Amino acid sequence: MEHIRLPKVEHVKLLDRVSPKKSRVGTLYLTATHSIFVESEDGVRNETWVLHSLVCGVEKQASASGVSLVLHCKNFQLLQFVIPEEKDLQDILLSLQRLSQPESFEELYCFAYKPNVAAEERQREWDFVDLRSEYKRMGLPNAHWKLSPYHSKYLFLYIKVSDTYPSELFVPESATLPVIAGSSKFRSRGRFPTLSYYNRDNHAAVCRSSQPLSGFSARCLEDEQMLGAVLRSNPRSDVLYVVDTRPKLNAIANRAAGKGYENEDNYSNIKFQFQGIENIHVMRNSQQKMLEVCELRTPSVSDFLLGLESSGWLKHIKAVLDAAVFIAKAVSEEGVSVLVHCSDGWDRTSQVCSVASVLLEPYYRTLKGFMVLIEKDWISFGHKFMHRCNHLVGDQKEVSPIIDQFLECVWQLTEQFPCAFEFNERFLITIHHHIYSCQFGNFIGNNQRERQQLETHSLWSYLWSNRAEFINPLYRPNHSQTQGVLRPSTAPYCFKFWKGLYNRFDRGVHPRQSVEDCLRTIREETEQLEDQLSSHKQVKVHNGSCNRAFSPLDSRNRSTSDSPPQCLFTINCACARNGKFIKTGK
Amino acid sequence: MEHIRLPKVEHVKLLDRVSPKKSRVGTLYLTATHSIFVESEDGVRNETWVLHSLVCGVEKQASASGVSLVLHCKNFQLLQFVIPEEKDLQDILLSLQRLSQPESFEELYCFAYKPNVAAEERQREWDFVDLRSEYKRMGLPNAHWKLSPYHSKYLFLYIKVSDTYPSELFVPESATLPVIAGSSKFRSRGRFPTLSYYNRDNHAAVCRSSQPLSGFSARCLEDEQMLGAVLRSNPRSDVLYVVDTRPKLNAIANRAAGKGYENEDNYSNIKFQFQGIENIHVMRNSQQKMLEVCELRTPSVSDFLLGLESSGWLKHIKAVLDAAVFIAKAVSEEGVSVLVHCSDGWDRTSQVCSVASVLLEPYYRTLKGFMVLIEKDWISFGHKFMHRCNHLVGDQKEVSPIIDQFLECVWQLTEQFPCAFEFNERFLITIHHHIYSCQFGNFIGNNQRERQQLETHSLWSYLWSNRAEFINPLYRPNHSQTQGVLRPSTAPYCFKFWKGLYNRFDRGVHPRQSVEDCLRTIREETEQLEDQLSSHKQVKVHNGSCNRAFSPLDSRNRSTSDSPPQCLFTINCACARNGKFIKTGK
Repeated sequence: MEHIRLPKVEHVKLLDRVSPKKSRVGTLYLTATHSIFVESEDGVRNETWVLHSLVCGVEKQASASGVSLVLHCKNFQLLQFVIPEEKDLQDILLSLQRLSQPESFEELYCFAYKPNVAAEERQREWDFVDLRSEYKRMGLPNAHWKLSPYHSKYLFLYIKVSDTYPSELFVPESATLPVIAGSSKFRSRGRFPTLSYYNRDNHAAVCRSSQPLSGFSARCLEDEQMLGAVLRSNPRSDVLYVVDTRPKLNAIANRAAGKGYENEDNYSNIKFQFQGIENIHVMRNSQQKMLEVCELRTPSVSDFLLGLESSGWLKHIKAVLDAAVFIAKAVSEEGVSVLVHCSDGWDRTSQVCSVASVLLEPYYRTLKGFMVLIEKDWISFGHKFMHRCNHLVGDQKEVSPIIDQFLECVWQLTEQFPCAFEFNERFLITIHHHIYSCQFGNFIGNNQRERQQLETHSLWSYLWSNRAEFINPLYRPNHSQTQGVLRPSTAPYCFKFWKGLYNRFDRGVHPRQSVEDCLRTIREETEQLEDQLSSHKQVKVHNGSCNRAFSPLDSRNRSTSDSPPQCLFTINCACARNGKFIKTGK
Repeated sequence: MEHIRLPKVEHVKLLDRVSPKKSRVGTLYLTATHSIFVESEDGVRNETWVLHSLVCGVEKQASASGVSLVLHCKNFQLLQFVIPEEKDLQDILLSLQRLSQPESFEELYCFAYKPNVAAEERQREWDFVDLRSEYKRMGLPNAHWKLSPYHSKYLFLYIKVSDTYPSELFVPESATLPVIAGSSKFRSRGRFPTLSYYNRDNHAAVCRSSQPLSGFSARCLEDEQMLGAVLRSNPRSDVLYVVDTRPKLNAIANRAAGKGYENEDNYSNIKFQFQGIENIHVMRNSQQKMLEVCELRTPSVSDFLLGLESSGWLKHIKAVLDAAVFIAKAVSEEGVSVLVHCSDGWDRTSQVCSVASVLLEPYYRTLKGFMVLIEKDWISFGHKFMHRCNHLVGDQKEVSPIIDQFLECVWQLTEQFPCAFEFNERFLITIHHHIYSCQFGNFIGNNQRERQQLETHSLWSYLWSNRAEFINPLYRPNHSQTQGVLRPSTAPYCFKFWKGLYNRFDRGVHPRQSVEDCLRTIREETEQLEDQLSSHKQVKVHNGSCNRAFSPLDSRNRSTSDSPPQCLFTINCACARNGKFIKTGK
């Protein structure tokens, strides 16, 4: 609380960017975790909550109504408050700058967020997503893949450098300890090739690692043997694709620093390929440029299209999807395993492996499967959420919307395959929101070791208990077209601007009806009918007049009716109590 | 048949633009109405039919596989045939150039299209859409609006120039014959102010006309009285909006030719406003540029976005929608009548009046209502389909995609309001197709007088009898949000590229699943359930155990089940028998 210089300012005006006439006057309160704007005009109390963790920028701006304070949020909300007294404005500015930039773990919102839940229950929350079960579901371990002997004393000495890796991971059955250790020493940050996805139908696998320390001419027998072991673990194939997701120039530049990429001459039976995805700095600047377009007050169509083009954002989304399509095709159509890496193997590699998994495996297109996928390819494999999402005050050059791009790739797929995903857009947006909100412990720390699960709550069980909100009513789990491998088009005109995420706070922009709401109604009506039908049947069976029990809808997922729809944020998160938040369709 | 120089060429290759490997070899046949490519590789006969009426360009092009013939179609299909012998290619080229450019009415496809239908039945086809009923539905005539005494001898002398007007139209009750005649003489082409849409709730109306012959200073008492009469016909309002849909500069330029726009000083109680929609030449060039982007073989995201921006297409769509939103708001929220005009009042005026009607009136969002709307604001009011769609060989400068823009505006609305329209995207695309196909008589001629209904068939009854294909399963006819006035956002990022129309022939581009198909299945299942439920109930009522008769779905439109889904084109139009046509979702 010592950071709050001024807990309350009256006669503050919250500007409406689209319609200045709709601007509102009220009182601004600063609490330890939220800024709360309370409007009490016309006798109606209306609250706007802003979570400090979500604020990524506070600045003064001169406006027609006076000097205003502009808050940029990580969930793309933009708020503009006019504060009458210069001194008050300065106090609020300094308070918010401090409150929005925690300096230590203890200040993070997840440690202040204390719902009334018993310790055992909290443990169950964390047990909800379990990677060991996930590998088991894939069919591992088996004759081709074994659990890495990570905890052995011998290996530990060698690969303690790879402390950004999870404690349990899978390596080819034929990879011996010295081979793993040698390969680890020859890979950036010790991140040796390990399994991300295994296709039990044809034994092809997607593996991931960091770049080799090959420089201009270095080679490593164990690393070469490691790739040979990966190749052998796919008995039906005699080649291994190695996908370097970077642009070729970047990879070449890395050679000067003793890093680089695989030389096809040194590795047996590999086919090497660059994919041209840009680095975190390019992506950060690209999103920044795109957000500037979104923040224009009255852009013309040209402003919008030129700005979108110039940001390069959709080009980057396409690059990620193109790489994932390449991998999914190799695995599913050619039966060839793929090793994917970038530089350190925790940004582009996480994107490409996880999008490829979504294309390949229907399970990852379910609510639970998608959580498991993020847990596996992002959290456990050490995507640096702490740095990339700027949870603590730190180096701005480490910040980058890599996970945003992953979520957007999946959203673009849901637009192309509206019936293949169990979850809806709101699910993706909610995950995005909580990656940045710091309300849950899942995205705290840069890797598994830094994570402090036990004192916090898990997003996954929270999402699961509110799953009625996230079900896609169009999902057809038993349809051959939705259950196979997805083959999206990556023609440029198939990429859309995701207004649901980037412009969702623009009032008046979104139509009042959503397909969601309509379909939810249809679904509820259908379920009523089913219930009626089944009760009628029971009565009739009792009457002995009929015992036919045909229902074409028996296979449908009924989980939506388990709990009533709620506005998640107003009830649980309390960061946007005025209901503007996410509820576009109402 | 005399135009066919060569009826058959063998060993023709139909190139696949996206995947050259998928190109096919077969025989090309030329018939009086279609070109037919028959592929017989692998023992499977596969036919591609191209209606000559739809071909808008034939050209030779050098390609990797040899010299090819490129066919550009009005429905945005692009076909590329490699013909081995130069002489054959030249013969096909010359034949197609002639066949695709009819020189007289008699050559139009509608006169060759002879389904086996009796004369009375054909008459009933034409009676299906009846404008007199439509005005009656609006509540006309009434105390404020009367049928124009058009056929009176007196008026005929004066307004024979307005021969582009329908025979029956509505004018203000207080507009006397001399006033109408005087106003007609003072308006370009004699197109005096007349009613397009009447809001029976608040008496506000949308009227339409051509520009006044005001030049630099001319005025006309009768025209001023005519606008006064329009104003008086709305008893609750003391002002009339006059919307000139043109850019101000264009309207000013027209003054030099003795035309122009209303001087607010001369007319009592009018509020004048320009809307800035560009003319037919700008629109033609804009679409051409956009189509060039669509035809790029492997565009980058930048190519696509820059090309789309540079074409200006979405900017023009937004301009039309902005004007319509202005009018809908004036009528519904302010209760003010609006007079709309452009130059002649048959292009931009038709667009803006009809889009405003769609926003204002739920009826026009139904299948039947939409047909009536096109019949009223486009066909009867003399949109020059013959010239704009280039049905007969003629002046290329008269060609312009004005009706395409109208259909696209409606499509953009269906994207924003997915539950407000009874019809689906396929309905819009099918109407587009047949506006250009010349298969039906509706769009033949430039106005009602030139139309030759009796020898041809009507698209409307054809669409109606195939309506199962065109129903939007999301339509919620009894929902307050879908039945009121639509208030779309016209923020730039709400406008999407309509790939379903402009790129629908790109194989491999469209995902294999459509929301349509999924929803159709859900709907059918629901109906099965309803049927089961109702049969169960009957049994039970017979048993005397229950007589409750609740069904939450009774209000739902059941017409989809009247006839089984068909591929319209393969059965009736035969212009794309290979099934590639329109069936994106299958």
